[in-house]
Amino acid sequence: MSAPEELLQAIMDAKSILITTHVAPDGDAIGSALALKIALDRMGKGPRVGLSDPVPEFLRFLPEADSIETAECVGGPFDLALVLDCGSLDRVGKCENAVVSSRKVANVDHHTTNTHFADINWVDSEAAATAQMAAGIIRDLGVEFDPDIAACLFAGLSTDTGSFRYSNTSADTFRVAAALVDAGARPWEIAQNIYDTKPYKSLSALAEAILGIQFSSGGLIASMEITAEMMERHGITESETEGFIGYARSIEGVEVAVAFREVEDGLIRIGFRSKEKVDVAEVAAEYGGGGHVRASGCTVPGPLAEVKSNVISRLNRALAEAGYTWTE
Amino acid sequence: MSAPEELLQAIMDAKSILITTHVAPDGDAIGSALALKIALDRMGKGPRVGLSDPVPEFLRFLPEADSIETAECVGGPFDLALVLDCGSLDRVGKCENAVVSSRKVANVDHHTTNTHFADINWVDSEAAATAQMAAGIIRDLGVEFDPDIAACLFAGLSTDTGSFRYSNTSADTFRVAAALVDAGARPWEIAQNIYDTKPYKSLSALAEAILGIQFSSGGLIASMEITAEMMERHGITESETEGFIGYARSIEGVEVAVAFREVEDGLIRIGFRSKEKVDVAEVAAEYGGGGHVRASGCTVPGPLAEVKSNVISRLNRALAEAGYTWTE
Repeated sequence: MSAPEELLQAIMDAKSILITTHVAPDGDAIGSALALKIALDRMGKGPRVGLSDPVPEFLRFLPEADSIETAECVGGPFDLALVLDCGSLDRVGKCENAVVSSRKVANVDHHTTNTHFADINWVDSEAAATAQMAAGIIRDLGVEFDPDIAACLFAGLSTDTGSFRYSNTSADTFRVAAALVDAGARPWEIAQNIYDTKPYKSLSALAEAILGIQFSSGGLIASMEITAEMMERHGITESETEGFIGYARSIEGVEVAVAFREVEDGLIRIGFRSKEKVDVAEVAAEYGGGGHVRASGCTVPGPLAEVKSNVISRLNRALAEAGYTWTE
Repeated sequence: MSAPEELLQAIMDAKSILITTHVAPDGDAIGSALALKIALDRMGKGPRVGLSDPVPEFLRFLPEADSIETAECVGGPFDLALVLDCGSLDRVGKCENAVVSSRKVANVDHHTTNTHFADINWVDSEAAATAQMAAGIIRDLGVEFDPDIAACLFAGLSTDTGSFRYSNTSADTFRVAAALVDAGARPWEIAQNIYDTKPYKSLSALAEAILGIQFSSGGLIASMEITAEMMERHGITESETEGFIGYARSIEGVEVAVAFREVEDGLIRIGFRSKEKVDVAEVAAEYGGGGHVRASGCTVPGPLAEVKSNVISRLNRALAEAGYTWTE
């Protein structure tokens, strides 16, 4: 995909550039930001990368990951703020000041819900990942992919497509991946760092959560509980249970997976995933949360048992509304 | 990759063709066999596909999967037997008679340990999957990829690379994947069928196996047991435990994962996976098995406890030879 001329020109004109991305950064956020940082460095632009949150442990192997600064340190004002992978401006969290004080703001994103909040908006919901768009920017700026740039972009592409398994994976995604490997990205090394370096404690907690899955609505709902006691016993934090719900969703016959996590202050964080028909964004919104049609979440006050029974009833209704029938 | 002229000629000359592959068939075995079946059907060859074991549940969604016959039904003798993804002839199991009675045998495989057992041997250990070689054969025969052929080949490519995550994943692998998606393969649909539609019984058996993992050599070896009793209690077959070892391999600090499965007649099927240095093909070969440097297997007589202690000792030695040191 080709980057708009206006965006390329703004990058070439800027003497000081801030690169930033969203709170709770994922592989696509960090990968895109670092790839652009390395490319702009090679153009002599010396951009700064400022983030609201720290780089997650599993992404710290990426080249230049230690050059990322906190919102407090990054300074400004900048000629240009490059905001990556953010559907709306508030997603940059504590970096909002640094962004709005910049002389020009560019918004590079692939979320359909993007609010076009910037001076220059390049939103392409066909892109599997913002990294796919960042690859276009780098190429159009005339910077050749080197192994470092390629590794960062590959990490973005891989994580946002669930390792080339989600419905956003296109022939183009594979073509970009091939070009990145040609340029020196090592898929197995990246995958090993990202997916294959789990501490046993999080795997054993996952196993316990799987064995505790409860089914309702004739097996259409799989519900998982991750209690504070479980996390403490296995010695893990909430962020290490992030992917657990995917296992509940993967079960044959399940339409909606729901995970209840006991977090701090007696709150219950609820995650929802659906497979084909149920709009879980709508369900989460009723509890003050949000997200996508097939993946959403919310946080509500406990106790767990009460929340659970209430949510399961609500999901029952959502299933019926989506046309499902079942016998208990 | 280009198929050898001799192989293409043998296919064109043959009036009756048997396609077969290995016992306990995986996605690459079934995907390659079906893709070639569909392509040869379109050339008017009407090949038969005969297998020693049934098609595993998670691969039955593939086009033409129900055309696969058992070793007993497939008949013969054939002008040509196309043996796919088999490192040695005995891997075809009950189809051995049908193969050896054929007038010509062709061996198409990507295992380094291949014994070159056939009249025509095309062995390319650079290929990530036999499906990548099958794609070459089909293209070189002049048959265009259609969505069915593409789906079968994609399934092979995806499963043998762990969804593009193993070290065999090359730029070429991605280029072939791009071509298959261009031809109509739908990555998310295939991934959903293969990875995201697990019966709960296999997930709960996995969870139990994870909780039972034992570590040795200072955490460098993770060893998993899948007993006959466990499989019976969860109501699953051996083929449903195929991916379990990957979880043991994914654990932080683990270099070698080994899974022991109690199969029929008191035999133990052993799977090996390594991450960086240990050559598990060599280890498996010592027990009469084979495979790749990072993924291999063998089958030995029980009892389990004895086999396990013997194999762990052998792995200890392999770790030391690879330069690892540890304190127990």
